[in-house]
Amino acid sequence: MATVKERKYRKAVQTLLSQYATFGAGMGDIERQLIFDTQHDHYQMVNVGWQDQQRIYGCAMHLDIKDGKIWIQHNGTEIELDDELTALGVPKNDIVVGFISPARRHLTEFATN
Amino acid sequence: MATVKERKYRKAVQTLLSQYATFGAGMGDIERQLIFDTQHDHYQMVNVGWQDQQRIYGCAMHLDIKDGKIWIQHNGTEIELDDELTALGVPKNDIVVGFISPARRHLTEFATN
Repeated sequence: MATVKERKYRKAVQTLLSQYATFGAGMGDIERQLIFDTQHDHYQMVNVGWQDQQRIYGCAMHLDIKDGKIWIQHNGTEIELDDELTALGVPKNDIVVGFISPARRHLTEFATN
Repeated sequence: MATVKERKYRKAVQTLLSQYATFGAGMGDIERQLIFDTQHDHYQMVNVGWQDQQRIYGCAMHLDIKDGKIWIQHNGTEIELDDELTALGVPKNDIVVGFISPARRHLTEFATN
């Protein structure tokens, strides 16, 4: 059973990804896929398609919710996802910058795990 | 409302990804995430973690179900996903190798779209 906090975080993550999926679309024949696994709490935005004869494939953003915290697993954009999440009301101690090494994560202003 | 075929293809795709998520695990501190978005029919296996101080992140397999066909969007492994799908009972004309250019896709023995 999801807690109020979990429901809030799921909504924040889905809002954030949905918002950026609409930006900069229309370059070549590229689909911006929103991939929301609400059962395992994995959330992504993935670019899939073609630009001329060139394959475009890659995850732009990947967020997980784990043990009541939001993990930023991957960010291929210039958007500061941690700041965006705090702006959506998520406290810094519930955000983990997962792509920064565990040994250096205490140097961020966010949670370490 | 999902058709019998759609339910069968969802099961095939999830079986395939789940099977390979258990292979070769245990290298460093790497999580093999199964990401199943059953609403939008996007299915992935993604490697997330660390090997020594090195970040490991990447989609290993990505399959979509679209208009009653299974699209192989990405395959970062040596496994022949098309053959695996046919072995699971999916006919070749319901498989699209999405990472092959639309202009060359007719050269495969699978569907073009």
